[in-house]
Amino acid sequence: MSRLTATYQLYGKPGSFEKKAEGIALGLTIGSWTDLPLLEQEQLKQHKGEVVSVTEYEGTPHPLNPGLIRAEAKISYPSANFSPDLPAILTTVFGKLSLDGEVKLLDLEFDDELLGHFPGPQFGIEGVRNLIGVQDRPLVMSIFKGVIGRDLEFLKAQLRQQALGGVDLVKDDEILFDNPLTPFEQRITAGKSVLQSVFEETGHRTLYAVNLSGRTSTLRDKAKKARELGADALLFNVHAYGLDVLQELAEDKDIRLPLMAHPAFSGAFTSSPTYGLATALALGKLTRIAGADFSLFPSPYGSVALEKSQALALGEELVKANPLKRSFPVPSAGIHPGLVPQLFEDFGTDSIINAGGGVHGHPDGAAGGGKAFRQAIDAVLKGQSLAEAAKHHHELKTALDMWG
Amino acid sequence: MSRLTATYQLYGKPGSFEKKAEGIALGLTIGSWTDLPLLEQEQLKQHKGEVVSVTEYEGTPHPLNPGLIRAEAKISYPSANFSPDLPAILTTVFGKLSLDGEVKLLDLEFDDELLGHFPGPQFGIEGVRNLIGVQDRPLVMSIFKGVIGRDLEFLKAQLRQQALGGVDLVKDDEILFDNPLTPFEQRITAGKSVLQSVFEETGHRTLYAVNLSGRTSTLRDKAKKARELGADALLFNVHAYGLDVLQELAEDKDIRLPLMAHPAFSGAFTSSPTYGLATALALGKLTRIAGADFSLFPSPYGSVALEKSQALALGEELVKANPLKRSFPVPSAGIHPGLVPQLFEDFGTDSIINAGGGVHGHPDGAAGGGKAFRQAIDAVLKGQSLAEAAKHHHELKTALDMWG
Repeated sequence: MSRLTATYQLYGKPGSFEKKAEGIALGLTIGSWTDLPLLEQEQLKQHKGEVVSVTEYEGTPHPLNPGLIRAEAKISYPSANFSPDLPAILTTVFGKLSLDGEVKLLDLEFDDELLGHFPGPQFGIEGVRNLIGVQDRPLVMSIFKGVIGRDLEFLKAQLRQQALGGVDLVKDDEILFDNPLTPFEQRITAGKSVLQSVFEETGHRTLYAVNLSGRTSTLRDKAKKARELGADALLFNVHAYGLDVLQELAEDKDIRLPLMAHPAFSGAFTSSPTYGLATALALGKLTRIAGADFSLFPSPYGSVALEKSQALALGEELVKANPLKRSFPVPSAGIHPGLVPQLFEDFGTDSIINAGGGVHGHPDGAAGGGKAFRQAIDAVLKGQSLAEAAKHHHELKTALDMWG
Repeated sequence: MSRLTATYQLYGKPGSFEKKAEGIALGLTIGSWTDLPLLEQEQLKQHKGEVVSVTEYEGTPHPLNPGLIRAEAKISYPSANFSPDLPAILTTVFGKLSLDGEVKLLDLEFDDELLGHFPGPQFGIEGVRNLIGVQDRPLVMSIFKGVIGRDLEFLKAQLRQQALGGVDLVKDDEILFDNPLTPFEQRITAGKSVLQSVFEETGHRTLYAVNLSGRTSTLRDKAKKARELGADALLFNVHAYGLDVLQELAEDKDIRLPLMAHPAFSGAFTSSPTYGLATALALGKLTRIAGADFSLFPSPYGSVALEKSQALALGEELVKANPLKRSFPVPSAGIHPGLVPQLFEDFGTDSIINAGGGVHGHPDGAAGGGKAFRQAIDAVLKGQSLAEAAKHHHELKTALDMWG
C-alpha cells in the first residue's frame, strides 16, 4: 500500500515528542483510535497515520526557550487518504498542522507509486542540453535588469548585448509582467529576431525565457501561444500561483517548452528556521516533482544568501537519482566570474551559472560580462587557475580586478 | 495614478531603515535612480517605488539580537508596474524580498481603482444570511469529524445528527478529498437528501459546504457540477492552491455558490513573527479580496490558537467598510457553548460560531451539541447569563458542566 512519509521539526520538552507525534499521526488522518471498537479499528487501519520515528536532539535547545529542545518526527500517511495532487498532499501533511505552533515540514518521501502521478521535468537537464547543444559545461544565464518602464527597443538592445557575450540563456526579470510597453507576445517575437541575428553574426545561439504571467486559467493558452510564436522557454513565478499550476503547465503536451521556476514569494514559507517548509523541499524536491526544468534559488554567496548547507541540499534534490528527470540547479544572486571555480565545486557541471549584476556591471558592458563568465568556465575545464587564464583574456581580467 | 502601498516589518540597527527602505523601493521597481540621466529619470518616474514612511520602534529589540530594533516601512508601488492580479502583486511587493532576511509583509493598501479589478465575495454576509434566512444572530456551523475511511452511510448519519441540533451550516473535513468511499458528487446528493428530510421533520434547514478538491484546472467544472447537483456551498483549501484560483471560482458566474476559505497550509507563511505575511493580511484582506464569503481562522481560545490581537485584526479586515461585500469571520478550534458570550464580544453578531469537538463531544451527541450552541446564542440575545439559561435548557447545562 502506497504511503507518503513526512519529516517534521518540532520543539518541546525532552520526552514529550512521542505523544505529540502520535497526536499528529491520528489528528491528520482518522482522528481517534484507542476509543474505537475493534471492528472499526480493523476498517480504519489502512487509513491511519503511523509514527515512523522520533529523534530528540538534546544538544539543540530552542533559540528563545532553552527549556525546549529540537526533535524530528517522521510520520507516514496512507496515499489512500488523499487524491494524488500537491494541494491535497500539502493539506493532509501540513494543513491544520501549519497553524499549530512551531513546526516545520522538513521533507516528504514519495514512494514510486505515488511519484508516478507526477510528471517531473519534461526536458530535464539532458533535454535542455540537447536544445542548447552544449553537453560538457555549466550553462551560463543572464537576467534582464532595470526593464520596468522601458520600451521594446531598450529590451532588444539589452538582449543583444547579453547574447553577444555568449551566454546560453537570458531570462526576463520576474517583475516584468504583461504590459503595454513590452507585451508578452512582442517580447517573444522581438527577442527571437534579436537572437537570430546574433546567431547569424556569431554562430552562438542564446535562448530567451519569457515571463509567463497573468490569471491562472489563462496561463496554458498563453504558453501555447508562446510556443507558436517560437518562444524558447518560460519563466514562471510558481510560488505566487501554486505548485499544481506549474504541474499543469508541465503536463500539457501542447506547451512543450522548458519551464524555469522562479523562487519569488517562496521566502514567505521557507525562510523561517522554525515555521513553514524546508527550502530543499519547497524549491528542490517539490518544484522538480511539479515539473520545473530549472529551479532558481538564492546562491550561498551573495547578500541575499541561502545558508550553504541548505543551498547544497536543494541542489542535490534537483539532480539526485529517482524516476523523474533532473532539474537544473540555478543558484542566483551575488554571482561574478571569480566565483566560477566555487560554483563548479558546489553545484557541479550540471548547473546554471546565473548572473545579473555580474554580467551587466562589467566595465565592458553585458557582452564583456558574458565573455568573462565563459572564459572562467573554460579555464576551470582546462584545469587552469582564473589568474592564469586572465593573462590571456581581457574580459576575465577586468572582471577579476572588479569583483575579485 | 493608481498605487499600492505595502507595509513591511524590518529589523536592523537604529538609523539604518531609510536606506534599506529606499533600496527596496528601487530594487522592486526600476532598479536604479541617481545614476540615471535626467531624461530617463523623467521617463521612469511613473514606475518608481516611493518610501512613504519609516517608523523605528526603539523599544522593541530583535528577540535574538538586542542590537537590532523593529521598524515598519511603508512603500508605495505604481499599479502600472504589474498586471492587476494577486500573483503579480505578491511577486512585485514580496517576490525577491521574501528571500531577503527577516522581513514580514504586514499590510497592502489597495486604492479603489486597483480594488476594482477584484471581485470580493459574491454573496457576502448579507447574501449568505438571505440564503439561510437568518438575520439577527451569529450563524452556527459544525464540522464533520473522523470521516477518513468511512462510507457514505457514516457521513449521512453524522450529517443528520448535526442538522438535528439546529446548526445552520455543516462543513466537510478539509482533509476529505474525492475518494471511492465518499465521492464528491455522492456527498452532495446524499447530503442534500439528509438535510431535506431533517427540514421536513423539524422545519430547520441546514446547508452543507462540500470540499472542492482536485487538480486546479478541474475545479471550475467540478464547482459547476456541484451547483447543478444542488450543492449549498463550497469549502476550499485556497492556500494550498493559490489566491488567484479562489478568485477565478468567485468570478465564474456559472458557479454562484458561497465560497468558504479554509486556512489549511496558511500557517506556513503566516505563523512566524518575523517572516511571511501577517495573518490579518493573508486570511483577512487578501482572502476577502479574492472572493471568499467565509474565512476560517484559528480562534484565540483553543489549543491551536491565534494571538487575540491578530484574530481580532483578521476579523476586522473581513467586515470593515470598503467597496467589496463583507466576508463572514469564522474563528475556529476550541469553541464550546460557554464561549458564546466571548465570541459575541470579540466577533459580533456578523460572525460564524464554528465547532467540531464542541458539537460532537456533547454527551447527548452532535444533536445535543448544536442545541446547546443555539441555546447559548438565544441567551446572549435575550441578555440572559448562560448559567441562568442553563436552568431551562438541558443541553446547555450539560455543555457548561462539561466545558465550563
